[in-house]
Amino acid sequence: MVTRIGLVGLGKMGNNMRARIRAAGIEVVGYDPRPEVTDVASLAELVAALPDDGPRIVWVMVPAGDPTRSVVTELGGLLGEGDVVIEGGNSYYAEDQARAGELAEKGVGYLDVGVSGGVWGLENGYGLMVGGDRTYVEAAMPIFDALRPEGPREEGFVHAGEVGAGHFAKMVHNGIEYGLMQAYAEGYELLAAKSELVKDVHGTMKAWTRGTVVRSWLLDLFVKALEEDPQLAAIDDWVDDSGEGRWTVDEAIDNAVPLPVISAALFARFASRQEQSPALKAVAALRQQFGGHAVKAAGPASPGAGPLEPPA
Amino acid sequence: MVTRIGLVGLGKMGNNMRARIRAAGIEVVGYDPRPEVTDVASLAELVAALPDDGPRIVWVMVPAGDPTRSVVTELGGLLGEGDVVIEGGNSYYAEDQARAGELAEKGVGYLDVGVSGGVWGLENGYGLMVGGDRTYVEAAMPIFDALRPEGPREEGFVHAGEVGAGHFAKMVHNGIEYGLMQAYAEGYELLAAKSELVKDVHGTMKAWTRGTVVRSWLLDLFVKALEEDPQLAAIDDWVDDSGEGRWTVDEAIDNAVPLPVISAALFARFASRQEQSPALKAVAALRQQFGGHAVKAAGPASPGAGPLEPPA
Amino acid sequence: MVTRIGLVGLGKMGNNMRARIRAAGIEVVGYDPRPEVTDVASLAELVAALPDDGPRIVWVMVPAGDPTRSVVTELGGLLGEGDVVIEGGNSYYAEDQARAGELAEKGVGYLDVGVSGGVWGLENGYGLMVGGDRTYVEAAMPIFDALRPEGPREEGFVHAGEVGAGHFAKMVHNGIEYGLMQAYAEGYELLAAKSELVKDVHGTMKAWTRGTVVRSWLLDLFVKALEEDPQLAAIDDWVDDSGEGRWTVDEAIDNAVPLPVISAALFARFASRQEQSPALKAVAALRQQFGGHAVKAAGPASPGAGPLEPPA
Amino acid sequence: MVTRIGLVGLGKMGNNMRARIRAAGIEVVGYDPRPEVTDVASLAELVAALPDDGPRIVWVMVPAGDPTRSVVTELGGLLGEGDVVIEGGNSYYAEDQARAGELAEKGVGYLDVGVSGGVWGLENGYGLMVGGDRTYVEAAMPIFDALRPEGPREEGFVHAGEVGAGHFAKMVHNGIEYGLMQAYAEGYELLAAKSELVKDVHGTMKAWTRGTVVRSWLLDLFVKALEEDPQLAAIDDWVDDSGEGRWTVDEAIDNAVPLPVISAALFARFASRQEQSPALKAVAALRQQFGGHAVKAAGPASPGAGPLEPPA
Repeated sequence: MVTRIGLVGLGKMGNNMRARIRAAGIEVVGYDPRPEVTDVASLAELVAALPDDGPRIVWVMVPAGDPTRSVVTELGGLLGEGDVVIEGGNSYYAEDQARAGELAEKGVGYLDVGVSGGVWGLENGYGLMVGGDRTYVEAAMPIFDALRPEGPREEGFVHAGEVGAGHFAKMVHNGIEYGLMQAYAEGYELLAAKSELVKDVHGTMKAWTRGTVVRSWLLDLFVKALEEDPQLAAIDDWVDDSGEGRWTVDEAIDNAVPLPVISAALFARFASRQEQSPALKAVAALRQQFGGHAVKAAGPASPGAGPLEPPA
Repeated sequence: MVTRIGLVGLGKMGNNMRARIRAAGIEVVGYDPRPEVTDVASLAELVAALPDDGPRIVWVMVPAGDPTRSVVTELGGLLGEGDVVIEGGNSYYAEDQARAGELAEKGVGYLDVGVSGGVWGLENGYGLMVGGDRTYVEAAMPIFDALRPEGPREEGFVHAGEVGAGHFAKMVHNGIEYGLMQAYAEGYELLAAKSELVKDVHGTMKAWTRGTVVRSWLLDLFVKALEEDPQLAAIDDWVDDSGEGRWTVDEAIDNAVPLPVISAALFARFASRQEQSPALKAVAALRQQFGGHAVKAAGPASPGAGPLEPPA
Repeated sequence: MVTRIGLVGLGKMGNNMRARIRAAGIEVVGYDPRPEVTDVASLAELVAALPDDGPRIVWVMVPAGDPTRSVVTELGGLLGEGDVVIEGGNSYYAEDQARAGELAEKGVGYLDVGVSGGVWGLENGYGLMVGGDRTYVEAAMPIFDALRPEGPREEGFVHAGEVGAGHFAKMVHNGIEYGLMQAYAEGYELLAAKSELVKDVHGTMKAWTRGTVVRSWLLDLFVKALEEDPQLAAIDDWVDDSGEGRWTVDEAIDNAVPLPVISAALFARFASRQEQSPALKAVAALRQQFGGHAVKAAGPASPGAGPLEPPA
Repeated sequence: MVTRIGLVGLGKMGNNMRARIRAAGIEVVGYDPRPEVTDVASLAELVAALPDDGPRIVWVMVPAGDPTRSVVTELGGLLGEGDVVIEGGNSYYAEDQARAGELAEKGVGYLDVGVSGGVWGLENGYGLMVGGDRTYVEAAMPIFDALRPEGPREEGFVHAGEVGAGHFAKMVHNGIEYGLMQAYAEGYELLAAKSELVKDVHGTMKAWTRGTVVRSWLLDLFVKALEEDPQLAAIDDWVDDSGEGRWTVDEAIDNAVPLPVISAALFARFASRQEQSPALKAVAALRQQFGGHAVKAAGPASPGAGPLEPPA
């Protein structure tokens, strides 16, 4: 029975998860490089603080890539036969498979867990998608039960397959998320563009939150955002992307799966971060070449009025 | 106070709505051309059966276009000063404005109401988006309260603006719906394409229904569909579109609003209904022309293996 | 035999076309509201100046919409049985059908001609797509032969169908043009993004102008643009659209034809003209709501570095 | 001075290139595993047959991936200091960098050459994009001059950058090609869909081949295809993709470059090869769930007519 686990990474997500696990009666020893938040001074201390009457379990919740890699590798040197590392971050699924292979040489188990729920997970619980061996999944189940939402286990938890399946599922989840967000956003823009007819954009979207086909948690959040800032005046149109959207499209391409919506949502984010689009500069240049169409000079000026004639 | 209204159109939607209105204590006189379901034999009988101690209200719930047009026009001849026609179908918003103008000449009011909720509305209530004059909206409020979901009125009802605003809002709602559905569908396809890794596609999507960022009513329905038919084996990939998706894209073009996701979802439906894509036949023909690439002859044969060389 | 025609609209296109028609030995009486360029003071004078020993032919080359409509209507009042109006601008094809119907009541013929070639048409000739009755097409053939490029007639001219077919064909031509330009532009952007590897973007695209699969006149122009301004530094990414792109997508939607590439090219232009994208502001707002993700405040500031943790 | 070179791979492309190089007065020793076309029995024999009074040059023209890898590696063992391997196939540019690194250890040079022109290159010459060291490029220039089209060298040849730049440029070239083809194809489909108005689709596209903005070599080929089969009746809509389109999108994603048009063209090809689209089956299933919309059962049946009511 799990009574105490280790948790590496005490950022916004890790911190909330620690609180939720503790609330379920499991002790958590947390490690973070920031002295003001960590419980122990090193990963070695963290491992030493875990009970040895059963598998020691360490949940890793740090950024994907090098940070996760180095933490998992170091843990591999500290843990032993039957212990389990749970990668709860956003690793690429092939990375999971590589890490699991390394740990397996030492008899250390590895689970990859896709975690969804954002800052609301502390209160609502987190959706969990897990990859790895059944034995390890069962050993860690009390933690999963602590983190997942109330209700039937299968509505907030899945053992999706072997190592990698959890993060693959989370990757697809995030790809879908990109598409959903862009769909609402496009609809919002069209409503707002027609404000001479639709007088109450916020009210309209709020009226969608019950009963309609498009009701969802994202819609609830969007309505909340509009409540706080009805014109979104304080928010720039600059949108980051966190990697899973890119992987989703890459993976679709590898598998010859058409992904028009999710890719369009991803590209909209890329474009949002460009000061000037080289592609559209090119189109403007081309139009000027063949049609003598007015171009907007780089800078503040606008195209002037043209003579009486149709465009070329 | 509304005690009895007329309802034209007793199909799946109209029938359910009648039940829900009646359950709220308002009498409903229904008309439908099918003798086995109608309460009265004609629109004239329907109007005659309405109380005349206040505005007479007739809700129209028939297919958009000619059917709605002819019913509304006939009602205009039967109703009088202060009465109200409620167009609850899926009319194009400019049609509403035209119809409302005609009725206004006779002093008859007009409200356009976008209704969302599908076959589940009977039980859950319907999301309602209303356009028209405040006076008429207030007169009809008991009906709206009967139809909308339990809970705060503004979470399932909005008076979005003047005539047309209700159906414009519903149109955008449906455009968003196209994007949402396609996003889930693309994610599903990618999961299913990687079934050697993700062993449990249905379970994975079910695990998204609580706690995750992508949880929604559409996701619940999708999980239900997979429960009934895990491979969707009984379902063809032929997908209809009901008009609002097209209008949404048309409207976006009129307003120079970029709509990459919603348009992609619409085009995917168009493509789903083609036996053969003329465009892709053209691409195949072009590749054959410049590269001597193998084409698949129209018919059952497959392209054969090529010689040892790179493609052109 | 055509010896003298009228030409309304002496902008960049009209002026060049007049020169080319004259060079072929046909006299042209030009009318333009600008006194400094016009040959006659009014449409009435223009019509009066045409020979009456055969059908009088007036070519209209003014902006689509109201300007074209009013010129054609006025000409309808001045011309008579057997005369011909040629609409060489960019009218919507249904407009052509309406105008042709009006003129037909007076026995005046109508041809719609899609004209492609831009400012280069003076030298290279113009590609012509014609809609209307064969009789009128034959009457106007000397003008078409004067305007079209050297070479076989059918490589620069088509009688595509009845009234409207010429502008429908031109509309589709322009829709294709949008797609082609965006395709080159995207490729250019990707090359430029990889400038640490591809040292010579201009040289690379220039090397595509002979022998390759992607060679085209648009590519030649693009190489010319890069020759004049290798970084396109003087050109803003603001790109107008002239109507035909929008009509093409509208028309595709009416006919349930999937148009993913042409619509994407159109939407990229819309987006290029937005100071801020309301949709992407919405996506940024949503991400902030669920993940506490950094947003860029509207204004100059950038998101700061986050703590050690994976994104939600 | 180059007097004789080796050429590995005598498929359609290799064979044509051999003919063109020979026509320029350079001897070619060809190797191919197929005994009926090869000049020598092995790569060793091929290398032995090359002059040793200067750098020995071997052009490799075999499929990308394992075949190219194994040929280049074997050549690395047969060639020596100052010799040059030219990879003229469609290798991924990072593969080139890896191969070049291996050969460099033995003093053997490596050039990667993107070759465009298809089966028409024999007659028209090939567009060439080259990556690698200047010294090797200069040594191989007589071959490049033999293969490239007549005219100024820089219009059919570029030394684009170091190793990898040639194939990166070719990759982007092919990505553009996908976009161009799909743009023409979409326009064709729309014309064909409106055949009650545009009576002569083939004639319309033929009329675009001179003077218009959309004229190109691909358009010429498309017109030729329509000449041979006006309805494209003999051609299935199944379209392969050869790898570069996928790499182009992958590369764009790595560089955060929005690629809406090229990706849409790629996805259209993926979709063309699906018997049934799992995503669209999913959308159909969803519509059935919420609206009781008719679905088409997998198999021959069509949806029946619905009752008098609007869709949900």
